[in-house]
Amino acid sequence: MHVVGVDYGTLSGRAVVVRVSDGAELGSAVHAYSRGVIEEGLPPDWALQSPHDWIEVLKTAVPEAIAAAGVDPASVIGIGTDFTACTILPTTAEGEPLCVAEPDRPHAWPKLWKHHAAQAHADRINALAAARGEAWLPRYGGKISAEWAFAKGLQLLEEDPQLYGRAERWIEAADWIVWQLTGVESRNVCTAGYKEIFQDGRYPSREFLAALNPGFEGFVDKLATAPLAPLGGLAGRLSARAAAWTGLAEGIAVAVGNVDAHVTSAAADAVRPGQMVAIMGTSTCHVMPSDRLAEVPGMCGVVADGIVPGLWGYEAGQSGVGDIFGWWVEQVGRTHEELTELAAGQRVGEHGLVALDWHNGNRSVLVDHHLSGVVVGQTLATRPEEVYRALVEATAFGARVIVEAFEAAGVAVEEFIVAGGLLKNAFLMQIYADVLRRPLSVIGSDQGPALGSAIHAAVAAGAYADIQQASKAMGKRVEKAYVPDERNADAYDQLYAVYRDLHDTFADGRVLHGLRALRDRA
Amino acid sequence: MHVVGVDYGTLSGRAVVVRVSDGAELGSAVHAYSRGVIEEGLPPDWALQSPHDWIEVLKTAVPEAIAAAGVDPASVIGIGTDFTACTILPTTAEGEPLCVAEPDRPHAWPKLWKHHAAQAHADRINALAAARGEAWLPRYGGKISAEWAFAKGLQLLEEDPQLYGRAERWIEAADWIVWQLTGVESRNVCTAGYKEIFQDGRYPSREFLAALNPGFEGFVDKLATAPLAPLGGLAGRLSARAAAWTGLAEGIAVAVGNVDAHVTSAAADAVRPGQMVAIMGTSTCHVMPSDRLAEVPGMCGVVADGIVPGLWGYEAGQSGVGDIFGWWVEQVGRTHEELTELAAGQRVGEHGLVALDWHNGNRSVLVDHHLSGVVVGQTLATRPEEVYRALVEATAFGARVIVEAFEAAGVAVEEFIVAGGLLKNAFLMQIYADVLRRPLSVIGSDQGPALGSAIHAAVAAGAYADIQQASKAMGKRVEKAYVPDERNADAYDQLYAVYRDLHDTFADGRVLHGLRALRDRA
Repeated sequence: MHVVGVDYGTLSGRAVVVRVSDGAELGSAVHAYSRGVIEEGLPPDWALQSPHDWIEVLKTAVPEAIAAAGVDPASVIGIGTDFTACTILPTTAEGEPLCVAEPDRPHAWPKLWKHHAAQAHADRINALAAARGEAWLPRYGGKISAEWAFAKGLQLLEEDPQLYGRAERWIEAADWIVWQLTGVESRNVCTAGYKEIFQDGRYPSREFLAALNPGFEGFVDKLATAPLAPLGGLAGRLSARAAAWTGLAEGIAVAVGNVDAHVTSAAADAVRPGQMVAIMGTSTCHVMPSDRLAEVPGMCGVVADGIVPGLWGYEAGQSGVGDIFGWWVEQVGRTHEELTELAAGQRVGEHGLVALDWHNGNRSVLVDHHLSGVVVGQTLATRPEEVYRALVEATAFGARVIVEAFEAAGVAVEEFIVAGGLLKNAFLMQIYADVLRRPLSVIGSDQGPALGSAIHAAVAAGAYADIQQASKAMGKRVEKAYVPDERNADAYDQLYAVYRDLHDTFADGRVLHGLRALRDRA
Repeated sequence: MHVVGVDYGTLSGRAVVVRVSDGAELGSAVHAYSRGVIEEGLPPDWALQSPHDWIEVLKTAVPEAIAAAGVDPASVIGIGTDFTACTILPTTAEGEPLCVAEPDRPHAWPKLWKHHAAQAHADRINALAAARGEAWLPRYGGKISAEWAFAKGLQLLEEDPQLYGRAERWIEAADWIVWQLTGVESRNVCTAGYKEIFQDGRYPSREFLAALNPGFEGFVDKLATAPLAPLGGLAGRLSARAAAWTGLAEGIAVAVGNVDAHVTSAAADAVRPGQMVAIMGTSTCHVMPSDRLAEVPGMCGVVADGIVPGLWGYEAGQSGVGDIFGWWVEQVGRTHEELTELAAGQRVGEHGLVALDWHNGNRSVLVDHHLSGVVVGQTLATRPEEVYRALVEATAFGARVIVEAFEAAGVAVEEFIVAGGLLKNAFLMQIYADVLRRPLSVIGSDQGPALGSAIHAAVAAGAYADIQQASKAMGKRVEKAYVPDERNADAYDQLYAVYRDLHDTFADGRVLHGLRALRDRA
């Protein structure tokens, strides 16, 4: 018996065929979106996608993955999907994206997660929520993001009110694609909790929304259009139309929608309390189930059942990780490989540098996207590979700040598990182990989200009783893949003390916001 | 009538032939030292030179300059010299360098200004002077340098006591070369004041020296071997031997020795109170006469008659300027020209960056060579030319801190005059004018020290009554060569406020000394 997982990324979608009994990944295929990220001709900070691209993934990548796996399509008992989030679109009550009828109106198109043009709207939401003491605000580390559903929705209302009126649904792509597979609308608890401010059984109040803009009062009516469905749940059955697209059998299980980061926990068999999965790439996302509810400073969110049913799901993040290394590589015109090889030859602290990894702002624990990077300690003898190493270390220190924030809030981090592209960098991984002073586990798959979606499909299909059991059988985690070197860890404790000092010095933004304001004025 | 100026630099010596009536530079020649800076086979931080190289400059560069000028050697009425300082050597009572008889003992050779192996000795001198409240200490901004005569002398005593005993003289190269020209030992007030702690008519006391090391008690006997001679004074007459070396007439005037930076004031016709000359190259040295004595925090020194007789001579410095730009150019593998062109297209503050120019430590006003560089405000969009511009601006901010320190101490800076290699960089000069909010004057010669020495020679020969009159006739200064742009100056006021904030944040060395200590331990 097999299941199919489909992971919708920023530039492409990937399908993987997985054996239900042991999680073996038998075949996969990738389909690059023909429209990609739509930015041309749009104002700054806009980023859209095309729903057509998403359907194409079902039509091409799924059958190709089945063919690559060499399995009988009839052996597939379920399909699961995960999506970037918050990627969200306005549709009719039947789920037709408004961009089908109104292709010339930018607001009719899905707004990709990294559409950042609703910052002013997010600022207003945060200011009002803080002023009113909204109980949900601390669940998001004190600030919601401009990327999320309410900020983007308020932007739609205020910039294209006519289209806002026509949008009967404001729906996450994660749920929309499941609707296309099943023919039935569903809403998942994960995006509802992390991106749509659903806490303690309710969305923000009509009074709150009306205070933002009288026209926004009924916004939740566009979201709360189906009961929230649990992760690993059965969203519905594969429709005849979707069966034709995919080549799979009509009527097989379709799992409830999910978010790429959160579904990776299942792929890493890291769905028990205290198992923190760090998905490390251009940025890092941390997800962790816990049996304790706490207000961790600067976390992205804590959501009941947000990773697996029955546990609190925590999310935190570092806004810049691989992106920062890539930036430096470009600055100095060298390669990652060169700089890594040279940097690896150095002893801890030998470069005399400490950096703050805020080049793309700081999500956790400061929740301030207007911060920027700092490098201290350069001399005339400082070499490019030394700065490179300092930047890698800075992101490890940033991770340690997050782990310590969780633990200080009483939410234990029992295991640190790395997924994502950067886990292939052994130099970086060892630094993280040394800085965090704990063994690192790593995921045993390089297509974590798609595998996670397949595991959710297996649960939805009834092959396992719950996500934990399915993950244990099908997920892949290598424990203690990197073990800290005690001497290096001691030395890093001292550099980390300097990092904390700088962190606290610059955290208030006095200097960095000032520079940003001067930049904007120029 | 003509005079010859000879400038002894770190790697070469330069001779210039100058017309006495108007300072026209008629011909010049450079002789590169064959031994250069002697560092090979020596411990770290050592830097020596060979006296033989210095004599070679007299034998080659002087006649070549005369030939290039096409003047009759008999028309030359005087010769003046300037030297790097403190470049110092042990000799016999007859002036023979000890390295002639003992070439295999490193301590027998002249120690070049940038010999930094006496830091531990300087630290002890400073600590003891502070503990005893020595009155001379504030004249040096609270700290004497490891480069100076007492630190280097104490190192000689403690590392080669036998040779120390044999050194009947401990003499600046500036004075030694004049001795070679005249056959008569002389000592100039400039190096005595700035490098040998001669203040208020005396050197440090025997008690002080004995407390450092009983064997050091009589150290001053090796220095105070001739009355101090005023700048612009007549040290003696050209000996027959030196006339044969140079091709000049025996018996012409030889000016009292001088230091390259200080003699540049004459070349720039900047020898009146409040005329600050900044000699800008790899580092920057600031020299300024004043009629007021004050203790300016972090200055290098204030010396009676130290630039011209009758005025206090102030010196301050920035340890890294052009060196920092060169370091960045090397980091990113680009050229100064490329980066300057790109950076010049930016508006003030557009890069969102501020740097601290401490990559080579901070001389004035913090007097701390264990500080290091800082860059804040980087984002993923930051480009190499933006950091380049921020580094240029940082050195301009550093210069403003120094100017403000003088003015806050009641020592007015009336005019800021730039000499040295960097004055050719119009982009940088305009930034300095904008940051300093004052017009910049520039020296009208690209061989400032040699021209200054020639001017001193003219005074020594009696062609002018004093340095001021000679400088007025022979020195070259373009006033208001760069005028501040008011709008940019306003914007720089705001960036400068951020620089001061960072300056004060990192000045205590809590972070930067900590990093250095970790580096040294690694």
